Amino acid sequence: MSSKVLIIGGVACGPKAASRLKRLRPDAEITIIEKGKIISYGACGLPYYVEGLFSDVSELNKTPIGVPRNPAFFERVKGVKVLTQMEALKIDPVKKAVRVKNLETGAEEDMAYDKLVLATGGSPSRPNIPGLDLKNVWFISHPDHVVSLKKEVAEQGLKKAVLVGAGFIGIEMAEALVQQGLEVTVVEMIDQIMPGVLDKDVATFAAKHLRQKGVKLVLGECVNGIEGKEKATAVKTDKQTIPADIVVIAVGTRPNDKLAREAGILCTKQGGVVINEYCQTGNKDIYAGGDCAVNSYVNGSVGAFLYVPLGSTANKHGRVIANHIAGAPTPFKGITCTSIVRAFDFTIGRTGLTEKQVRELNMDIETFTWAGPDLPHYMRDHKPLVIKMIASRRDRKLIGVQVAGPGNGAKRLDVAAGMISMGGTVDQLADVDFAYAPPYSTALDPLATCAHMMTNKLDGIAKGVSAFEAKKRMDKGEVLLIDVRTPAEFETNQLPYDVLHIPLGALRGKAAELPKDKDIMAFCKISLRGYEAQRILNAAGFDRVQFIEGGIVGWPFEVKTLK
Amino acid sequence: MSSKVLIIGGVACGPKAASRLKRLRPDAEITIIEKGKIISYGACGLPYYVEGLFSDVSELNKTPIGVPRNPAFFERVKGVKVLTQMEALKIDPVKKAVRVKNLETGAEEDMAYDKLVLATGGSPSRPNIPGLDLKNVWFISHPDHVVSLKKEVAEQGLKKAVLVGAGFIGIEMAEALVQQGLEVTVVEMIDQIMPGVLDKDVATFAAKHLRQKGVKLVLGECVNGIEGKEKATAVKTDKQTIPADIVVIAVGTRPNDKLAREAGILCTKQGGVVINEYCQTGNKDIYAGGDCAVNSYVNGSVGAFLYVPLGSTANKHGRVIANHIAGAPTPFKGITCTSIVRAFDFTIGRTGLTEKQVRELNMDIETFTWAGPDLPHYMRDHKPLVIKMIASRRDRKLIGVQVAGPGNGAKRLDVAAGMISMGGTVDQLADVDFAYAPPYSTALDPLATCAHMMTNKLDGIAKGVSAFEAKKRMDKGEVLLIDVRTPAEFETNQLPYDVLHIPLGALRGKAAELPKDKDIMAFCKISLRGYEAQRILNAAGFDRVQFIEGGIVGWPFEVKTLK
Repeated sequence: MSSKVLIIGGVACGPKAASRLKRLRPDAEITIIEKGKIISYGACGLPYYVEGLFSDVSELNKTPIGVPRNPAFFERVKGVKVLTQMEALKIDPVKKAVRVKNLETGAEEDMAYDKLVLATGGSPSRPNIPGLDLKNVWFISHPDHVVSLKKEVAEQGLKKAVLVGAGFIGIEMAEALVQQGLEVTVVEMIDQIMPGVLDKDVATFAAKHLRQKGVKLVLGECVNGIEGKEKATAVKTDKQTIPADIVVIAVGTRPNDKLAREAGILCTKQGGVVINEYCQTGNKDIYAGGDCAVNSYVNGSVGAFLYVPLGSTANKHGRVIANHIAGAPTPFKGITCTSIVRAFDFTIGRTGLTEKQVRELNMDIETFTWAGPDLPHYMRDHKPLVIKMIASRRDRKLIGVQVAGPGNGAKRLDVAAGMISMGGTVDQLADVDFAYAPPYSTALDPLATCAHMMTNKLDGIAKGVSAFEAKKRMDKGEVLLIDVRTPAEFETNQLPYDVLHIPLGALRGKAAELPKDKDIMAFCKISLRGYEAQRILNAAGFDRVQFIEGGIVGWPFEVKTLK
Repeated sequence: MSSKVLIIGGVACGPKAASRLKRLRPDAEITIIEKGKIISYGACGLPYYVEGLFSDVSELNKTPIGVPRNPAFFERVKGVKVLTQMEALKIDPVKKAVRVKNLETGAEEDMAYDKLVLATGGSPSRPNIPGLDLKNVWFISHPDHVVSLKKEVAEQGLKKAVLVGAGFIGIEMAEALVQQGLEVTVVEMIDQIMPGVLDKDVATFAAKHLRQKGVKLVLGECVNGIEGKEKATAVKTDKQTIPADIVVIAVGTRPNDKLAREAGILCTKQGGVVINEYCQTGNKDIYAGGDCAVNSYVNGSVGAFLYVPLGSTANKHGRVIANHIAGAPTPFKGITCTSIVRAFDFTIGRTGLTEKQVRELNMDIETFTWAGPDLPHYMRDHKPLVIKMIASRRDRKLIGVQVAGPGNGAKRLDVAAGMISMGGTVDQLADVDFAYAPPYSTALDPLATCAHMMTNKLDGIAKGVSAFEAKKRMDKGEVLLIDVRTPAEFETNQLPYDVLHIPLGALRGKAAELPKDKDIMAFCKISLRGYEAQRILNAAGFDRVQFIEGGIVGWPFEVKTLK
């Protein structure tokens, strides 16, 4: 057991590793050094401070019962020494020492270690454009940022916000600023929100909601610069100039791996310290965890090192590091890339791999998109939910799940994350004994129903087509569309195409009148009846029948509302 | 492929089997016979009708878009024939025919089958006591029951309800009737609510909430009869007479297995048709599913046949039956006994086995009870949750999870159900990549934290003691109790025992003053600090230290409120 443990970074992984290690090895002499003034804060809570869900930003670095998590707290309660405003300048892996600088006094010294933990976190990526240093341009990664942002908004009466980047922080900040009464535009270089996280179809569906809530989305445009003399006045894209008196840059996070890199520790080309399942770096006495490190995928199916900076993973890393230093190693098998974001009434998230990722990997997969209510219709709180599922054709294993909608998608993501990490098939997922009572789910859980439909597709029974694929063919006028909803539904809203309206109950009787030499696509509100229509027509001798997955509820594009 | 499929029972499993089979095999001639007047209704929704969450009981047998699921609907939309008010009298497995009786005309006939499906459901158990036929005594299993109950309550101004049985329906009805302004007493023979579902400690914790909401709980008393001449006026237990103008009997469900039993089909002694993983009975042409059948436990660890009647399982059975008849068999591995109930502000539920069950099975297990908030404390919607976890000492597999509290327990149950059916360990559960953002969970999900604490116990690091065990020893005055909360917390509420108050931050300094020859139990609000206190005292040379799991938030007994 080594006695001197030095931890660089005091936000999430570092304090977790320190506290856990001290509990396991009370004799360890543990020091955390942190460049900033505060430690152990919940950076994920920053957008909710902006939104106004709590008014004292220092809540973010208090314990749940209101005790500040400051150096004195760590000393007294955790038995860990914390030095703030202390920057690590250089690691000497041979001497096993770190050169540090006291940012208050400017004094430098060497701190020796037996084990070193790099928990240096990540920083907001800075795009290579002019204007980032103008006033009223913010990055969101530290409590100071949101305090100054809120203050300026209030004092200067700022009104027009442009957010650069439609990832998690961009979307969380969009909601926060809309709730604060600002006009919000989000500019994203890629032609969808949450690129890399969601497939384009789910992203398009979710984007519709953001627009309905008043967020202006500018997708597929590159920001070339921020204009203004002293203060930002506009954001210039490759296509337009958008007036702005507040600009938030949220184009991703980059790992703070400079220290490691300079010490010769293996990092990936794209950035991020490479660690093994015990969070060890290439140097056996140096660990890394949290937002400065890259992760493995839980089942090894993705070759690349994954950079998914998250407070949850940082905490897990901290524990793994402590256990290994303490001599009780516990391997961490990796992540399933789970992410979630609340966007107004929507929950949007993903676990496992996206369709785009697996198509690029040439995996043989099937997808299914389900839409429906998350509770029985007679429970007044029921809300619609869209689930996109991806499974392997070869072994029927669940590969990924994406959710979007006002319904309870968070629960389904967590279940799917568990099933993916256990290597479960969609058949096993469908048979999970979900907790059923009307306040909590439908008799068959939406995730189970979606898994059933996936098995129907894998078995060649259900011929679903995604909304994106359907739209392409509909736009070309290649298909006969049959809307099998009731007359009352049909009078409420419609897809903006020529459709034949045959309520499902009348379909058996009218099948003889339909053409067998044309591709038919059936749909309904959620396409459960659309699927039944396909089976009815199959039984009547029709081969060229599909149904549009997700129906009208899951339609990512505009719907014609009639009344 | 057989062409004539006869299904007895039209509520959940029957219609599901019929609809699925028709989609798979359009040529099958499928008939459902149902004794009652209506079919395909959501019986689980009955208490919510009583509560007033919806006003038209026929919602329970409509589709989500308002189409009645009646025989005409099944004929037109599903291609399935339904005969209501048609009772099955006798199965002749040799002739492959069922003797049926038209309850309107009295006419009897034989209906031939190639495959027969028993979906006869369950009925409310009738205890062997006098007075069940008095007016104002209800069983709750059919829409007619709740309509008449609500009508009588309104017309007669009924005020005092006594519910016999503290299982799911008893608790759901207790809430419904309290919400309707009635005085509600629940009488339960066993000395806890939800016996067989929850362990006594979790049940005691949940019962405290029911009492706080005004439900009078009479536990451990046997109901000997219902008094009254024409109408019920009181419920007589072995200890008291409780005035009542409305009595609801909810002492469980018994499987309707008479038809099967009389036809020589294997049923269990306790009741319930025995089926294999394809829902086949002992007779290869006769299937059974839903509430008339018994289930297997998913990993075979429980020897007994399990009778857990639930709409979710009934639907799964229906699909399994259809698949097998259609020649595309899909085995159903069984249930994990998941159950959930909403009781006022609490979600109460369980998946997997209880501590009581596994202790009786002589399994070598560990338990841990966690309490804490379900969201970060700075999110205003955070609510407390108690999780009890049971794991195997031998292979560290997750065995069971129980939840109770206002926090989001439903999500954690579903994840646990998935992990149990996949044979996951608590280490694997802790590493699941849960969806983290502040509106959805803490950085480490409560289930992961609970699993971590379980590993700490399994590894001998954490010495937790359950509240029940602690109380036994506290009542005898055997232990030194140390409350390590802050002074402000200590002035708010306390455990009603002599305690030493040492805030955690002062514990290292004061350790020398504590006795080493006495058993010490530390605790705090949720016993996270209680656990830290244990480790701090261990480090100071104390062996005889434990902490009280769940702390004050999870304390199932009365707490002394000071301000």
